[in-house]
Amino acid sequence: MRTQVAIIGAGPAGLLLSHLLGLQGVDSVLIERQTADHVRSRVRAGVLESGSVDVLTRAGVGRRLATEADEHRGVYLQWPGERHHVDFTALVGRSVWIYGQTELTKDLMAAREEAGRPAFYLASDVTPHDVDTDRPHVTFTDADGRPQRVDADAVVGCDGFHGPSRRAVPAARQRVWERTYPFAWLGVLADVAPSTDELIYAWHPDGFAMHSMRSATVSRLYLQVRPDEDIDEWSDDRIWEALATRLGAGMEGWDLRTGAITEKSVLPMRSFVTTPMRHGRLFLAGDAAHIVPPTGAKGLNLAIADVTLLAEALTAWLRDGREDLADAYSDTALRRVWRCTHFSWWMTTTLHRHGDDFDARLQLSQLQRVIDSEAAATEFAHNYAGLPISFG
Amino acid sequence: MRTQVAIIGAGPAGLLLSHLLGLQGVDSVLIERQTADHVRSRVRAGVLESGSVDVLTRAGVGRRLATEADEHRGVYLQWPGERHHVDFTALVGRSVWIYGQTELTKDLMAAREEAGRPAFYLASDVTPHDVDTDRPHVTFTDADGRPQRVDADAVVGCDGFHGPSRRAVPAARQRVWERTYPFAWLGVLADVAPSTDELIYAWHPDGFAMHSMRSATVSRLYLQVRPDEDIDEWSDDRIWEALATRLGAGMEGWDLRTGAITEKSVLPMRSFVTTPMRHGRLFLAGDAAHIVPPTGAKGLNLAIADVTLLAEALTAWLRDGREDLADAYSDTALRRVWRCTHFSWWMTTTLHRHGDDFDARLQLSQLQRVIDSEAAATEFAHNYAGLPISFG
Repeated sequence: MRTQVAIIGAGPAGLLLSHLLGLQGVDSVLIERQTADHVRSRVRAGVLESGSVDVLTRAGVGRRLATEADEHRGVYLQWPGERHHVDFTALVGRSVWIYGQTELTKDLMAAREEAGRPAFYLASDVTPHDVDTDRPHVTFTDADGRPQRVDADAVVGCDGFHGPSRRAVPAARQRVWERTYPFAWLGVLADVAPSTDELIYAWHPDGFAMHSMRSATVSRLYLQVRPDEDIDEWSDDRIWEALATRLGAGMEGWDLRTGAITEKSVLPMRSFVTTPMRHGRLFLAGDAAHIVPPTGAKGLNLAIADVTLLAEALTAWLRDGREDLADAYSDTALRRVWRCTHFSWWMTTTLHRHGDDFDARLQLSQLQRVIDSEAAATEFAHNYAGLPISFG
Repeated sequence: MRTQVAIIGAGPAGLLLSHLLGLQGVDSVLIERQTADHVRSRVRAGVLESGSVDVLTRAGVGRRLATEADEHRGVYLQWPGERHHVDFTALVGRSVWIYGQTELTKDLMAAREEAGRPAFYLASDVTPHDVDTDRPHVTFTDADGRPQRVDADAVVGCDGFHGPSRRAVPAARQRVWERTYPFAWLGVLADVAPSTDELIYAWHPDGFAMHSMRSATVSRLYLQVRPDEDIDEWSDDRIWEALATRLGAGMEGWDLRTGAITEKSVLPMRSFVTTPMRHGRLFLAGDAAHIVPPTGAKGLNLAIADVTLLAEALTAWLRDGREDLADAYSDTALRRVWRCTHFSWWMTTTLHRHGDDFDARLQLSQLQRVIDSEAAATEFAHNYAGLPISFG
């Protein structure tokens, strides 16, 4: 089989890339290790920057998002005894949108089916080949056990941190930056209306807590725990008690509504960047190239920015014969990646308990400053609500 | 001997406090462990915030400063291949002034002599007593070996980190926050015209370097070294070579002028805060209560802010019978102390090499952001050029 762009991974990044390329008349084939149902049900990110919403809307996949997503003007920053709203819209004229990754994936899958763009699900042994020649191809075994080969002008790895694409880049040609954090998140989904209109980021001596949401009836909540935390030690009651304490239930009449917990998992925290994001005719995008800890809500937005840049670059190259954007892709994308990597690290290290009492006092000084200083609040808002797609 | 305020320590903080109190008709006695010559020749800080200059000018000790200090609109931030000017005056309408601590001490000593305010130099065994009663006093042995006792309404410790005042607060009544850093500064004074019009803060893979100045003919330069660095291993040639490399000599035609090194020392880096800053009738100010690493140029400015607040508070109390400002002193001063402690930590950890390559990349992201984002530059300028004396 021959196509212009072989895309490994059909999560939101791969699906959106395929969609954006299709709009420009560039053909692609999606190759995904999991079933469509598995991909559709992956609970991950839930916050879209307005720049991401613009991309989706312009691409014609924002109809449901426009009616069902919840626009948030800002977030709450909190520490014991104090809760403050940071109003991104007032500060920088941009907002964020609450829309579960599962919903976005559903929209993108519907668009793929409607356009009839080819996708292989349940592909095993997916392997990119000869990416440093001008005849790259991808081999895999399809869902029926038949060997397949897709020849393409370019291969794009949207296959996440554990996918085969990054491993196809010789170690001598990539440089890796990595940080693991001495804590993790215990994340829960609960069938209960959110107890807050916008996200609460709470610093607490016991550890960070966060109140997010997926819809008017589903809350998403997080607790800082140890990386090796035994999830069996967290009964639903214990989770709600810890959340109530850390989120300040009872403070100024605010209370935390509880409900049935439907999902519970421990999420590790990691920063990871590999450079460059291109090797020959192989391009990396999203989690295949970089991981951020979830505190800044940047992971999905970075992936959307990557594939937006990449769709423009591959269109210019494969349709119009101009390779300059493809040559610039890695540097262009990495400017945003490093900004978001720094911001995600800053959010993470500022809000989670670690180190000693001096560190705690520095954290509270920093949080207080975001409230007291318009410049500090503006810088926070720029980073959280999102930088332009073509940044730097 | 009886006075209203016994001031332990006659460095710039103690001298300025005595001067400010004197202007309001409040008597004080200064008690200093060293000789006047020793105090006068201590090379320390060199950057005054405009708020500090305002205090000194209003107090009538700014005449020489007004003609001899150098006004700087901002500083340079640098990393290999790039040097950028951050213009505080354009960003926040405030500048900083270059004026050596030795010069300021000279001015304050002249003012003390002119006003005939009492001071004991070469006092030994200085000890505050009964500070938690309403009859505090200070005992010491004077320069002639005679025991002395000063009774006062209030005792102020301006006696630095190693002085006896902080030790007079029972351990159970104070809380200490402390951080030592895994690096130090090798600082030199050199008889050579500065090679820059404003301070250069340089991030470099070999370690931080800084180009400061004391006057049109004296440069002050710093190199990041290990805390246990053997100063004998740093010949003048080695120092100039390291400075040239880290400060980017040869970059875009810029060069580093060299000259005779007249002083050389290794300065440790520490953050330290003790709270509260008052115990009974004992008040702590400046380095007696808090130490910042020198990277943000905050030490002397914080001391000036402390004694400015304290002069107002003690005047209201001892002259006008209103104790509210004295009661609020610790909280009021600590708001500024924590802001500056955080900023000094931020400057220090952002500019010095420590940690791994990921940390280095985060540092460069942060520095780049100060250049790219007006909000980030404004927040930097607010902190560096100085917050209002009555802050928060």
